[in-house]
Amino acid sequence: MSEPIRHCDIGFVGAGVMGKNLILNLADNGYRVAAFDLDRQRLDALLAQDAAERGDQPARVIACSSYTELLGLLKAPHLIVLSVPAGKPVDDICHKLIDAGIQADDIVVDTGNSLWTDTVEREKSYEGKFIFFSTAVSGGEEGARFGPSLMPSGDPYAWTRIKPVWQAIAAKVDPASGKPIERKIPGKPVTEGEPCATYIGPTGSGHYVKMVHNGIEYADMQLICEAYQVMRDQLDMNPLEIAGVFKQWNEGILNSYLMEISAEVLATADSDTGLPLVDVILDKAGQKGTGLWTAVSSLQLGSPAPSIAEAVYARSLSALKAERVKASSVLAGPSPQLLDDVQKQATVAALHDALYCAKVCVYAQGFHLMKTAAAEQGWELNFAEIAKIWRAGCIIRAVFLQSITEAYQRNEELANLLVDPFFAKQISGFQQHWRQAVANATLAGIPVPALSSALSYYDAYRTAVLPANLLQGQRDFFGAHTFERTDQPKGKSFHVLWSEQGRPMTRIK
Amino acid sequence: MSEPIRHCDIGFVGAGVMGKNLILNLADNGYRVAAFDLDRQRLDALLAQDAAERGDQPARVIACSSYTELLGLLKAPHLIVLSVPAGKPVDDICHKLIDAGIQADDIVVDTGNSLWTDTVEREKSYEGKFIFFSTAVSGGEEGARFGPSLMPSGDPYAWTRIKPVWQAIAAKVDPASGKPIERKIPGKPVTEGEPCATYIGPTGSGHYVKMVHNGIEYADMQLICEAYQVMRDQLDMNPLEIAGVFKQWNEGILNSYLMEISAEVLATADSDTGLPLVDVILDKAGQKGTGLWTAVSSLQLGSPAPSIAEAVYARSLSALKAERVKASSVLAGPSPQLLDDVQKQATVAALHDALYCAKVCVYAQGFHLMKTAAAEQGWELNFAEIAKIWRAGCIIRAVFLQSITEAYQRNEELANLLVDPFFAKQISGFQQHWRQAVANATLAGIPVPALSSALSYYDAYRTAVLPANLLQGQRDFFGAHTFERTDQPKGKSFHVLWSEQGRPMTRIK
Repeated sequence: MSEPIRHCDIGFVGAGVMGKNLILNLADNGYRVAAFDLDRQRLDALLAQDAAERGDQPARVIACSSYTELLGLLKAPHLIVLSVPAGKPVDDICHKLIDAGIQADDIVVDTGNSLWTDTVEREKSYEGKFIFFSTAVSGGEEGARFGPSLMPSGDPYAWTRIKPVWQAIAAKVDPASGKPIERKIPGKPVTEGEPCATYIGPTGSGHYVKMVHNGIEYADMQLICEAYQVMRDQLDMNPLEIAGVFKQWNEGILNSYLMEISAEVLATADSDTGLPLVDVILDKAGQKGTGLWTAVSSLQLGSPAPSIAEAVYARSLSALKAERVKASSVLAGPSPQLLDDVQKQATVAALHDALYCAKVCVYAQGFHLMKTAAAEQGWELNFAEIAKIWRAGCIIRAVFLQSITEAYQRNEELANLLVDPFFAKQISGFQQHWRQAVANATLAGIPVPALSSALSYYDAYRTAVLPANLLQGQRDFFGAHTFERTDQPKGKSFHVLWSEQGRPMTRIK
Repeated sequence: MSEPIRHCDIGFVGAGVMGKNLILNLADNGYRVAAFDLDRQRLDALLAQDAAERGDQPARVIACSSYTELLGLLKAPHLIVLSVPAGKPVDDICHKLIDAGIQADDIVVDTGNSLWTDTVEREKSYEGKFIFFSTAVSGGEEGARFGPSLMPSGDPYAWTRIKPVWQAIAAKVDPASGKPIERKIPGKPVTEGEPCATYIGPTGSGHYVKMVHNGIEYADMQLICEAYQVMRDQLDMNPLEIAGVFKQWNEGILNSYLMEISAEVLATADSDTGLPLVDVILDKAGQKGTGLWTAVSSLQLGSPAPSIAEAVYARSLSALKAERVKASSVLAGPSPQLLDDVQKQATVAALHDALYCAKVCVYAQGFHLMKTAAAEQGWELNFAEIAKIWRAGCIIRAVFLQSITEAYQRNEELANLLVDPFFAKQISGFQQHWRQAVANATLAGIPVPALSSALSYYDAYRTAVLPANLLQGQRDFFGAHTFERTDQPKGKSFHVLWSEQGRPMTRIK
């Protein structure tokens, strides 16, 4: 029998999938955790897993049955981490901690997928009662267990206290290669390498950055799905063949966790029927809101992120399953074209390049959005550091993020990732294939909303004169909305007297 | 000298561009108006225009210098119309009317571009003080003056009182042809035809419908701009030639107010320089928020409206003028291809069909969104009636809306405009051209975000099995988000134990 724990380093509320794994990760790194969850079964499962993993070592986790007991087990100032669903549960727990006697210099860290504006509100509303700090976590179950990417933001004093903890449990990157250091064994934390945990900025900024991470994730997943559908529906390839292509792509510039797991999913057979797993999964995508929030924020801030919005819409469209099935027998498509092997190979090669270019655009949209939000909120975001902590641990981890890190190290004021010399040159070499891939899918009747919206974004961004001049003319015609002139200084507004003879122009201000 | 007015029918607050024109429209229809505006010059301009237009008739408008005076001139129950900027001004005026003694059975009608949820809040918060009613107005300056499209919603008692007024001033449609009855002469109201004013439903629904109208308007304008840019940049046509094409298109199924005024704008020379007007207008588009609200609502309700979102993003992208100019010399595009006259004509012909199909998709997205919102809010919207009142007066008026009216008259439960037999057949005939137009622009490097997102929408909507099965597999892999099976009833959730041998599947609930 091991001796009972008398003091813990960290209080932890929430022992769901993410919470349990974060707790075990903390334990692996030598932190003793007092855990609370309303669901006693979850605590029991946690204790059982701790017992199984620690062997004959002393217990690393103690289960509490109240908030008072939780606080009693911690040294002051108390450090309490929450891993609970975003929204009301967070505030419920904060109020219970107040009732249980939490103090003004204690720290509560929210690690859920909270809406960033809620985080800002919370820091204010709990001021004087305790310090509300936040840390957005990416990496899913496995990341939580063996090293997530962590995006902390808020009170700098709280950050000083939490920093060693977060740097210990975070994913690590090999500084020489820029690649993740693998870790999959309980009890064997990685202590070397660059930790994927960096202070993002004032309250809210970490959750904002995580939100954009998820928006990028939505678009990245959608792009892979579109490449899959072209291969499946137009090239008539089976899931195993497509898994092979994805595995090969994962060896090169498209290397990423999402590419790797897409190959895994496609290579998996259903354990019940033996059919390809993908064919027994219903094509109705769920969503939890973060991609949607990213798209909404991009609309509100006027920082275009069309491929992220298209990815959100693609999920909504997938959910209209019954309508689609009906429409499929009513709406006309193109006649199928038979392709020979050479054409098929060319199509796959073009898809590869299209995927890469579209991916760059998606990240360009995401980083542009963060830059716009930072300017709006007065945050000083360090984009090279943000790209760095996304190199390992998180869902969008990819070789590619090393190139983004370097782009922002070259120029921290970069207006857009697209104009970084490295990316501009790569896209220049690939863009013709990208266009062919989009045109091909367009003519073949395969929906490629993310691939094509990324291309429109690229083409619009490199167009010096857009047809918004005609649009401003329309707006002035029907609504007297006025416009600026190309040959006059910014800020002067003009209006045409449309119903008068000769349509004279007048200066408004 | 005409006799001074002693009693008025309607009190009116706000004599800006829209307000002044609505007041004169009311006056044309025999209503006497007491008007108030904080800006005395606006009132003077209004009185001057009334004097000029009424000739030797008695004054139809009286200018007030306080809310108390305004109320004093009206018969009880008072009917007061607001035409002021959306947001705070509306509430400021409501509070001043309360201070001035407005009564519980008096009616205040907001005609601004208010956010629909604000309208819902306001009805509640002013309950017992007065009846807050709303009427969304479309048609710009000219519509306000000679017949707008009106979308009233809220308290049915208030509607009974306002109905004759709104039906009098609204635009009228010739029931035989479904086309607008022209009216451009002050003092000569149109008294025959179907008025473009119908009761939409409970509070907020009218402003919601108007919001979607504006979202459609954004996308419709953007589509025309994309067709313009292909002709301008790829086909090297000058503005006058493109105006000619638009005029010709305006004679057929693409007939619409926006097509008509686009041709007008392109045919206009700058009165200062003699250059084509469009070339002296700066290509930075403004926006007032309604298109953005539509896109946000579609994201939140999961009713895809990608072409509306793309139109909003296109405006944001246009506003990044300085960035675009720099990027234009850095980012590579395709080499220009020389087209002969036959190819040019084919490209223009394909653009015509593409524009039509994309337009149908934009309306399909807008109506689908209204249907989803109605289900969510418990509104019973009559889509045939909504299409009817958009046939004249408003900015998106078009021959085409008669076809939409008929589609919803054939089937008021229509899942999507695309599957209406008339539209399905038309798109079937045009879709090949649509694909060619999008593929052509894609290969030529011209951004066509709205044309292509509409096509992706169409193709996704008619696809029985989308790659969301792979996406659900990805989500289950990294986040244990579970999925449904194609061979099991709805609502059962499954999860693969990815790290176990043979990857067995488990039923979650």
